[in-house]
Amino acid sequence: MVTKSINELEEGVMLEPQFDKRDGLLPVAVQETSTGQILMLASVNEEAFKKTLDTKLATFWSTSRKQLWTKGETSGDLLQVDNILIDCDQDALVYQVTLLGDGVCHTFDTKGNHRKACFYRELDINEHRLKFIKDMK
Amino acid sequence: MVTKSINELEEGVMLEPQFDKRDGLLPVAVQETSTGQILMLASVNEEAFKKTLDTKLATFWSTSRKQLWTKGETSGDLLQVDNILIDCDQDALVYQVTLLGDGVCHTFDTKGNHRKACFYRELDINEHRLKFIKDMK
Repeated sequence: MVTKSINELEEGVMLEPQFDKRDGLLPVAVQETSTGQILMLASVNEEAFKKTLDTKLATFWSTSRKQLWTKGETSGDLLQVDNILIDCDQDALVYQVTLLGDGVCHTFDTKGNHRKACFYRELDINEHRLKFIKDMK
Repeated sequence: MVTKSINELEEGVMLEPQFDKRDGLLPVAVQETSTGQILMLASVNEEAFKKTLDTKLATFWSTSRKQLWTKGETSGDLLQVDNILIDCDQDALVYQVTLLGDGVCHTFDTKGNHRKACFYRELDINEHRLKFIKDMK
Protein backbone atom coordinates (compact mmCIF):
# COMPACT_ATOMS: atom_id res chain seq x y z
CA MET A 1 0.00 0.00 0.00
CA VAL A 2 1.25 3.50 -0.83
CA THR A 3 2.61 5.30 2.20
CA LYS A 4 0.35 8.13 3.27
CA SER A 5 1.59 11.62 4.10
CA ILE A 6 1.60 12.60 7.75
CA ASN A 7 -1.37 14.88 7.14
CA GLU A 8 -3.37 12.09 5.52
CA LEU A 9 -2.49 9.74 8.39
CA GLU A 10 -3.49 12.26 11.06
CA GLU A 11 -6.43 14.05 9.50
CA GLY A 12 -7.72 11.57 6.97
CA VAL A 13 -10.42 8.94 7.11
CA MET A 14 -8.44 6.13 5.49
CA LEU A 15 -7.52 3.31 7.83
CA GLU A 16 -3.78 2.71 7.57
CA PRO A 17 -2.48 1.08 10.76
CA GLN A 18 1.32 1.45 10.86
CA PHE A 19 2.36 -2.12 11.56
CA ASP A 20 5.70 -1.75 9.76
CA LYS A 21 6.70 1.21 11.91
CA ARG A 22 6.30 -0.92 15.04
CA ASP A 23 7.91 -4.15 13.84
CA GLY A 24 4.53 -5.64 13.06
CA LEU A 25 2.85 -5.16 16.45
CA LEU A 26 0.62 -2.33 17.66
CA PRO A 27 -0.42 -1.85 21.29
CA VAL A 28 -4.12 -2.10 22.14
CA ALA A 29 -5.85 -0.84 25.26
CA VAL A 30 -8.97 -2.87 25.98
CA GLN A 31 -11.64 -0.73 27.61
CA GLU A 32 -15.08 -1.76 28.82
CA THR A 33 -17.58 0.24 26.77
CA SER A 34 -20.16 0.63 29.51
CA THR A 35 -17.83 1.77 32.32
CA GLY A 36 -14.64 3.09 30.69
CA GLN A 37 -12.60 0.69 32.85
CA ILE A 38 -9.33 -0.43 31.27
CA LEU A 39 -9.36 -4.21 31.35
CA MET A 40 -5.99 -5.15 29.84
CA LEU A 41 -3.28 -4.07 27.42
CA ALA A 42 -2.27 -6.34 24.55
CA SER A 43 -0.76 -6.31 21.07
CA VAL A 44 -2.07 -7.01 17.60
CA ASN A 45 -0.33 -7.91 14.40
CA GLU A 46 -2.07 -7.34 11.08
CA GLU A 47 -3.65 -10.79 11.08
CA ALA A 48 -5.09 -10.37 14.59
CA PHE A 49 -6.45 -6.96 13.71
CA LYS A 50 -8.09 -8.25 10.54
CA LYS A 51 -9.61 -11.18 12.41
CA THR A 52 -11.00 -8.74 14.98
CA LEU A 53 -12.63 -6.71 12.20
CA ASP A 54 -14.04 -9.82 10.56
CA THR A 55 -15.40 -11.48 13.71
CA LYS A 56 -15.97 -8.46 16.01
CA LEU A 57 -14.35 -10.58 18.74
CA ALA A 58 -11.17 -9.17 20.31
CA THR A 59 -8.21 -11.02 18.86
CA PHE A 60 -4.58 -10.38 19.72
CA TRP A 61 -1.10 -11.63 19.03
CA SER A 62 0.20 -13.47 22.06
CA THR A 63 3.81 -12.33 22.46
CA SER A 64 4.52 -15.16 24.92
CA ARG A 65 2.95 -18.01 22.93
CA LYS A 66 3.70 -16.38 19.56
CA GLN A 67 0.31 -17.20 18.14
CA LEU A 68 -3.01 -15.64 17.28
CA TRP A 69 -5.15 -15.34 20.37
CA THR A 70 -8.89 -14.78 20.32
CA LYS A 71 -9.54 -13.76 23.89
CA GLY A 72 -11.86 -16.23 25.60
CA GLU A 73 -11.69 -18.76 22.78
CA THR A 74 -11.15 -21.62 25.21
CA SER A 75 -12.70 -20.19 28.40
CA GLY A 76 -15.80 -18.75 26.72
CA ASP A 77 -15.01 -15.33 28.14
CA LEU A 78 -15.11 -13.67 24.74
CA LEU A 79 -14.94 -9.93 24.21
CA GLN A 80 -17.41 -8.38 21.79
CA VAL A 81 -15.82 -5.40 20.07
CA ASP A 82 -18.23 -2.46 20.03
CA ASN A 83 -15.87 0.19 18.75
CA ILE A 84 -12.25 0.64 17.72
CA LEU A 85 -10.35 3.90 18.13
CA ILE A 86 -7.04 4.66 16.43
CA ASP A 87 -4.57 7.35 17.41
CA CYS A 88 -3.18 10.33 15.52
CA ASP A 89 -0.31 8.54 13.79
CA GLN A 90 -2.24 5.25 13.48
CA ASP A 91 0.13 3.16 15.56
CA ALA A 92 -1.98 2.54 18.68
CA LEU A 93 -5.51 1.23 19.20
CA VAL A 94 -8.33 1.12 21.71
CA TYR A 95 -10.82 -1.72 21.60
CA GLN A 96 -14.03 -0.77 23.38
CA VAL A 97 -15.67 -4.04 24.36
CA THR A 98 -18.54 -5.77 26.08
CA LEU A 99 -17.63 -8.77 28.23
CA LEU A 100 -19.50 -11.85 27.01
CA GLY A 101 -18.14 -13.84 29.94
CA ASP A 102 -16.84 -13.15 33.42
CA GLY A 103 -13.70 -11.16 32.79
CA VAL A 104 -10.39 -10.95 31.01
CA CYS A 105 -7.84 -11.91 33.64
CA HIS A 106 -6.45 -15.40 34.17
CA THR A 107 -6.09 -14.74 37.92
CA PHE A 108 -8.77 -15.45 40.51
CA ASP A 109 -10.12 -13.28 43.27
CA THR A 110 -10.56 -14.54 46.83
CA LYS A 111 -14.08 -15.71 45.97
CA GLY A 112 -12.63 -17.97 43.27
CA ASN A 113 -13.91 -15.94 40.33
CA HIS A 114 -11.76 -14.81 37.41
CA ARG A 115 -11.00 -11.15 37.87
CA LYS A 116 -12.80 -8.84 35.44
CA ALA A 117 -9.68 -6.81 34.68
CA CYS A 118 -5.94 -7.41 34.79
CA PHE A 119 -5.58 -4.01 36.46
CA TYR A 120 -6.67 -4.96 39.97
CA ARG A 121 -3.87 -3.30 41.91
CA GLU A 122 -2.85 0.32 42.24
CA LEU A 123 0.41 1.77 43.39
CA ASP A 124 0.91 3.73 46.55
CA ILE A 125 3.15 6.26 44.81
CA ASN A 126 4.85 7.39 47.99
CA GLU A 127 5.40 3.95 49.52
CA HIS A 128 6.14 2.18 46.20
CA ARG A 129 3.91 -0.69 47.23
CA LEU A 130 0.76 -2.09 45.65
CA LYS A 131 -2.70 -2.29 47.09
CA PHE A 132 -5.72 -4.11 45.76
CA ILE A 133 -8.48 -2.01 44.27
CA LYS A 134 -11.75 -2.26 46.19
CA ASP A 135 -13.64 -5.49 45.49
CA MET A 136 -10.83 -6.87 43.28
CA LYS A 137 -8.75 -8.70 45.94
CA MET B 1 16.69 -7.77 42.44
CA VAL B 2 15.61 -11.31 43.19
CA THR B 3 13.05 -12.63 40.72
CA LYS B 4 9.66 -13.09 42.28
CA SER B 5 7.52 -16.19 41.87
CA ILE B 6 4.49 -15.88 39.63
CA ASN B 7 2.24 -15.96 42.68
CA GLU B 8 4.14 -13.12 44.34
CA LEU B 9 4.03 -11.09 41.13
CA GLU B 10 0.30 -11.62 40.69
CA GLU B 11 -1.03 -11.62 44.21
CA GLY B 12 1.61 -9.70 46.13
CA VAL B 13 1.95 -6.06 47.09
CA MET B 14 5.58 -5.61 46.08
CA LEU B 15 6.12 -3.42 43.07
CA GLU B 16 8.26 -5.32 40.57
CA PRO B 17 7.70 -4.00 37.06
CA GLN B 18 9.03 -6.53 34.55
CA PHE B 19 11.17 -4.31 32.36
CA ASP B 20 13.59 -7.11 31.47
CA LYS B 21 10.79 -9.32 30.16
CA ARG B 22 9.81 -6.60 27.66
CA ASP B 23 13.27 -5.51 26.50
CA GLY B 24 13.24 -2.57 28.86
CA LEU B 25 9.94 -0.96 27.81
CA LEU B 26 6.46 -1.37 29.29
CA PRO B 27 3.29 -0.07 27.62
CA VAL B 28 1.28 2.60 29.43
CA ALA B 29 -2.32 3.58 28.80
CA VAL B 30 -2.92 7.18 29.84
CA GLN B 31 -6.45 7.67 31.10
CA GLU B 32 -8.11 10.86 32.29
CA THR B 33 -9.03 10.30 35.93
CA SER B 34 -12.22 12.35 35.88
CA THR B 35 -13.79 10.90 32.72
CA GLY B 36 -12.12 7.53 32.08
CA GLN B 37 -11.24 8.69 28.55
CA ILE B 38 -8.09 7.08 27.13
CA LEU B 39 -5.87 9.94 26.00
CA MET B 40 -2.84 8.17 24.51
CA LEU B 41 -0.71 5.04 24.69
CA ALA B 42 3.02 5.32 25.36
CA SER B 43 5.99 3.39 26.73
CA VAL B 44 8.18 3.73 29.81
CA ASN B 45 11.62 2.45 30.57
CA GLU B 46 12.74 2.11 34.17
CA GLU B 47 14.15 5.65 34.26
CA ALA B 48 10.93 7.21 32.93
CA PHE B 49 8.87 5.23 35.41
CA LYS B 50 11.06 6.30 38.33
CA LYS B 51 10.92 9.92 37.24
CA THR B 52 7.12 9.67 37.09
CA LEU B 53 7.05 8.35 40.65
CA ASP B 54 9.43 11.07 41.84
CA THR B 55 7.74 14.01 40.13
CA LYS B 56 4.13 12.78 39.78
CA LEU B 57 4.27 14.13 36.23
CA ALA B 58 3.74 11.61 33.43
CA THR B 59 7.11 10.78 31.91
CA PHE B 60 7.71 8.33 29.06
CA TRP B 61 10.44 6.97 26.86
CA SER B 62 10.08 8.42 23.39
CA THR B 63 10.67 5.51 21.02
CA SER B 64 11.03 7.89 18.05
CA ARG B 65 13.41 10.39 19.67
CA LYS B 66 15.01 7.77 21.93
CA GLN B 67 15.01 10.01 24.95
CA LEU B 68 13.20 10.62 28.22
CA TRP B 69 10.03 12.57 27.60
CA THR B 70 8.11 14.40 30.30
CA LYS B 71 4.81 15.04 28.57
CA GLY B 72 4.17 18.78 28.25
CA GLU B 73 7.66 19.76 29.37
CA THR B 74 8.01 22.26 26.52
CA SER B 75 4.33 23.02 25.77
CA GLY B 76 3.24 23.36 29.39
CA ASP B 77 0.56 20.74 28.86
CA LEU B 78 1.80 18.58 31.72
CA LEU B 79 -0.05 15.54 33.05
CA GLN B 80 -0.42 15.22 36.80
CA VAL B 81 -0.38 11.55 37.76
CA ASP B 82 -3.16 10.79 40.22
CA ASN B 83 -2.90 7.05 40.29
CA ILE B 84 -0.93 4.22 38.70
CA LEU B 85 -2.36 0.76 38.05
CA ILE B 86 -0.26 -2.28 37.21
CA ASP B 87 -1.47 -5.51 35.65
CA CYS B 88 -1.42 -9.10 36.85
CA ASP B 89 2.06 -9.99 35.62
CA GLN B 90 3.42 -6.47 36.20
CA ASP B 91 4.34 -5.76 32.60
CA ALA B 92 1.72 -3.13 31.70
CA LEU B 93 0.64 0.12 33.32
CA VAL B 94 -2.19 2.61 33.46
CA TYR B 95 -1.47 6.22 34.40
CA GLN B 96 -4.63 7.95 35.59
CA VAL B 97 -4.00 11.65 35.09
CA THR B 98 -5.35 15.16 35.34
CA LEU B 99 -4.60 17.46 32.40
CA LEU B 100 -2.71 20.53 33.63
CA GLY B 101 -2.89 22.04 30.12
CA ASP B 102 -5.08 21.70 27.08
CA GLY B 103 -4.49 18.14 25.96
CA VAL B 104 -2.01 15.48 25.04
CA CYS B 105 -2.09 15.41 21.24
CA HIS B 106 0.26 17.32 18.96
CA THR B 107 -2.50 17.68 16.33
CA PHE B 108 -4.97 20.56 16.15
CA ASP B 109 -8.72 20.52 15.76
CA THR B 110 -10.52 22.74 13.24
CA LYS B 111 -10.75 25.51 15.86
CA GLY B 112 -6.95 25.55 16.11
CA ASN B 113 -6.76 23.96 19.56
CA HIS B 114 -4.58 21.00 20.45
CA ARG B 115 -6.76 17.96 20.66
CA LYS B 116 -7.30 16.64 24.19
CA ALA B 117 -6.67 13.02 23.20
CA CYS B 118 -4.77 11.24 20.45
CA PHE B 119 -7.78 8.95 20.03
CA TYR B 120 -10.05 11.32 18.09
CA ARG B 121 -11.13 8.93 15.34
CA GLU B 122 -13.09 5.72 15.46
CA LEU B 123 -13.33 2.99 12.92
CA ASP B 124 -16.42 2.12 10.96
CA ILE B 125 -15.83 -1.60 11.36
CA ASN B 126 -17.91 -2.58 8.35
CA GLU B 127 -16.61 0.10 5.97
CA HIS B 128 -13.00 0.00 7.25
CA ARG B 129 -12.91 3.79 7.23
CA LEU B 130 -12.36 6.28 10.02
CA LYS B 131 -14.71 8.94 11.29
CA PHE B 132 -14.03 11.75 13.71
CA ILE B 133 -15.48 11.43 17.18
CA LYS B 134 -18.02 14.14 17.95
CA ASP B 135 -16.42 17.49 18.79
CA MET B 136 -12.91 16.19 18.05
CA LYS B 137 -12.67 17.05 14.33
